[in-house]
Amino acid sequence: MTDFLYRQLLRNLTEEIRSERRPVGSRLPSIRSLSRERGVSKSTILAAYDRLEADGLISARPRSGYFVNGVQHTDPLSSHPPLISQPESTPLPVTSGQVLMDIMERGAAFDLVGDQGTELGNEALRRCLARAQRRQTAGNQNNYDEPAGLHRLRSVLANRLHSGGSHLEADQIIVTSGCQHALLLALMATTQRGDVVAVESPGFYGLFQLFEALGLKALELPSSAESGLSPDAFELALQHWDIKVLVVSPCYSTPTGASMPESNKKRILLLAQSRNIPIIEDDIYAELSFNEQRPRTLQSYDDQGLVLLCSSVSKSLSRDLRIGWIVPGRYRERIKQLKLVTSLASCRAQQQGLVDFLQEGSFDRHLRVRRQKLRQQYQQLLEMLSQCLPSMKTCSRPQGGLALWVELPDSVDSLDLYGQCLEKGIILTPGRLFTAQERYRNALRISFAFPWTEKRRAALALLGRMVADQ
Amino acid sequence: MTDFLYRQLLRNLTEEIRSERRPVGSRLPSIRSLSRERGVSKSTILAAYDRLEADGLISARPRSGYFVNGVQHTDPLSSHPPLISQPESTPLPVTSGQVLMDIMERGAAFDLVGDQGTELGNEALRRCLARAQRRQTAGNQNNYDEPAGLHRLRSVLANRLHSGGSHLEADQIIVTSGCQHALLLALMATTQRGDVVAVESPGFYGLFQLFEALGLKALELPSSAESGLSPDAFELALQHWDIKVLVVSPCYSTPTGASMPESNKKRILLLAQSRNIPIIEDDIYAELSFNEQRPRTLQSYDDQGLVLLCSSVSKSLSRDLRIGWIVPGRYRERIKQLKLVTSLASCRAQQQGLVDFLQEGSFDRHLRVRRQKLRQQYQQLLEMLSQCLPSMKTCSRPQGGLALWVELPDSVDSLDLYGQCLEKGIILTPGRLFTAQERYRNALRISFAFPWTEKRRAALALLGRMVADQ
Repeated sequence: MTDFLYRQLLRNLTEEIRSERRPVGSRLPSIRSLSRERGVSKSTILAAYDRLEADGLISARPRSGYFVNGVQHTDPLSSHPPLISQPESTPLPVTSGQVLMDIMERGAAFDLVGDQGTELGNEALRRCLARAQRRQTAGNQNNYDEPAGLHRLRSVLANRLHSGGSHLEADQIIVTSGCQHALLLALMATTQRGDVVAVESPGFYGLFQLFEALGLKALELPSSAESGLSPDAFELALQHWDIKVLVVSPCYSTPTGASMPESNKKRILLLAQSRNIPIIEDDIYAELSFNEQRPRTLQSYDDQGLVLLCSSVSKSLSRDLRIGWIVPGRYRERIKQLKLVTSLASCRAQQQGLVDFLQEGSFDRHLRVRRQKLRQQYQQLLEMLSQCLPSMKTCSRPQGGLALWVELPDSVDSLDLYGQCLEKGIILTPGRLFTAQERYRNALRISFAFPWTEKRRAALALLGRMVADQ
Repeated sequence: MTDFLYRQLLRNLTEEIRSERRPVGSRLPSIRSLSRERGVSKSTILAAYDRLEADGLISARPRSGYFVNGVQHTDPLSSHPPLISQPESTPLPVTSGQVLMDIMERGAAFDLVGDQGTELGNEALRRCLARAQRRQTAGNQNNYDEPAGLHRLRSVLANRLHSGGSHLEADQIIVTSGCQHALLLALMATTQRGDVVAVESPGFYGLFQLFEALGLKALELPSSAESGLSPDAFELALQHWDIKVLVVSPCYSTPTGASMPESNKKRILLLAQSRNIPIIEDDIYAELSFNEQRPRTLQSYDDQGLVLLCSSVSKSLSRDLRIGWIVPGRYRERIKQLKLVTSLASCRAQQQGLVDFLQEGSFDRHLRVRRQKLRQQYQQLLEMLSQCLPSMKTCSRPQGGLALWVELPDSVDSLDLYGQCLEKGIILTPGRLFTAQERYRNALRISFAFPWTEKRRAALALLGRMVADQ
């Protein structure tokens, strides 16, 4: 589908519903008939309906079609210009303050209250891991795993990546100790101290920490909360700076949850290829699509081995498993060596447990439930935000992932707010965390990773009152 | 005990046994009476008897005392000057060839035949790990562990280090993904690209790989196969070079298995303290003492937080567990940050399983058996070497660890030999692996980590024939 037709259709349908030309309870045209009527492909209609449903404007009823919803929350995006960042586009060394370290160390960046007491966790995963531990052989206890990781796990992961359009063999994947470790290896393989790294802004705080540790300069590029990194900005930056690598998260990038259109993926890849610049693709949120299907990887368009795709199961399954992977492309030998040098090997028993979990279909079952829950929790968060944070300037509207990005009035300093909230037992994720510059102080990342229990709802309401008092 | 008195006593007793002034089967004086007779402390006598026993010259019989053994192997050390390395003491950048990578990747550097088929492994460990996995809570699955690691594990590890003379609290330990990861963090915390790092020579190959990855220059220092790094050489080097950190393994350092005398530990620490230079202490083999008691850590003498002690359970318990730790001293905040940046967190379930294993006493039981086995396997190796490798110039005589160091005639090139042996299914660990210079080509590290099965004995015999053919 072309991005333009999709956006036009979405705008028109939204307008028709909000103006009540399509009244509450009315049935929307079938996908087939609307496709004929508007001259747009059926997949574009389906994508628009999916988005309207994710936004809470319509609901699908099994075997009946799509219907306009009754209560509609206000849409902070509809009345504001699209959210596009404008960081200072000069390469800057990264230094992080103690407050940022403090926030990251809490490790609860996706939770307002730091307590998921009632959740049961994944029993099948526990079972698979315990069984793998019980069955561990003496050979496994006495020897390191091969540096690239367990062959069966790499084979199963390669198969899974087919759904992202990446057609890989086991040998094109190297297992790491989580995605952060994969990003470390990718940066070590492609840069040297003092090099310039281009990155989305706002971007993942763990990346800025890596830039600091490796002595790299961050060139933050303008990005849209809807479509991610701006290809125009990347093109311009390539003309001005000696960029050694681009780090980008095309699928539900944190903190905004932006989804990069396919045309942008292709254009960014072509720009990088034309200058032989590698791209590190952070794919960690891609499985957490609100739809049935994950988006395509940027890697899937790459025929030159320039993309290093990094991911893990930390966001989609378990943060405790510490299993990630990297598709190293043409940097395979170097990445394998760096894996060996930085951590020797991965735990075979853990890898085997994950293989069993994947192969018995438990991961797919888990994801079906998880995606549905995330979509509900996202919609509930949107409703609560319109009630609790009426002064909110705008917020992002992701189609997947674990969090969205909120911009508050300029008078609000979310770093100050962080301290005030902490006293009341609420953990915020201030915008300042997602840049190496003095920016985004009026922004917050807010998570919908966990169910909206009374405690969590109360925390959000209290946050709203504190914002109102600023 | 003073080092000098110990050595003199050991030399005298060895001479008395070899000259048959103490005949085969005769009983040695009791520790108490010999102490009075020679005017040496009882602990020095005990240490000398322990060493003679480890060398196979005498045997302890329960409640009867020590007796001179019947069959005595030739002692390659007795007829040769002590093995002291003389590397080129100039800081050099490190580049490793493909052959070295190949050897390391086999991950079987401690085994001649790559097959421990009949070993059963540690059942108690399997049970503890499986139980910890089964009992894992949802909160654990959904959240990262705190960056420093599970508090209970750090607390138990702190207690264990008391036996090495280190008196630590849980907060003075940070959990890592194995010892190699700990060494990475320690080097990242104390150096920058281009810095000079002093290191024992021959030294651990994983270190040289780290130096290469981090762009550090290795200053290899002369070291004795008996007493480890030469304090004189370190002192001289400090006068000539701007050394940023010293990496040293005082307890059974690989590849020689050298044990640093306490007086040397103190002197090296004082030298480092006088110039405010941190020391990275690799403690990974220390628990594998042939005696009941592990040696003291170098860290235990440090009152200034200048020593960063790195270790793991990979050599003493399981290579698959991927749990290591670091005592970061004054670099605590920096190391915690680097742990977070390079791998976010460790697996809580694995840590909990290890805590249970340690607390139920299974680790101590395991070590008692393991130490005894290693001592037997070491003695068997010495006997086999004198039979299979008569042309051997000399070999080291460790008091613990997993391997010893063999020097062959200069005509032997162990890198060539590596290739020839590989064709016959035998995996060697050539001396060249343990330096960044063109040295030690005539040396091998030979492991006694595994029982001498027929297959392993045959491999050693074949190696001997191949050396004879060179």
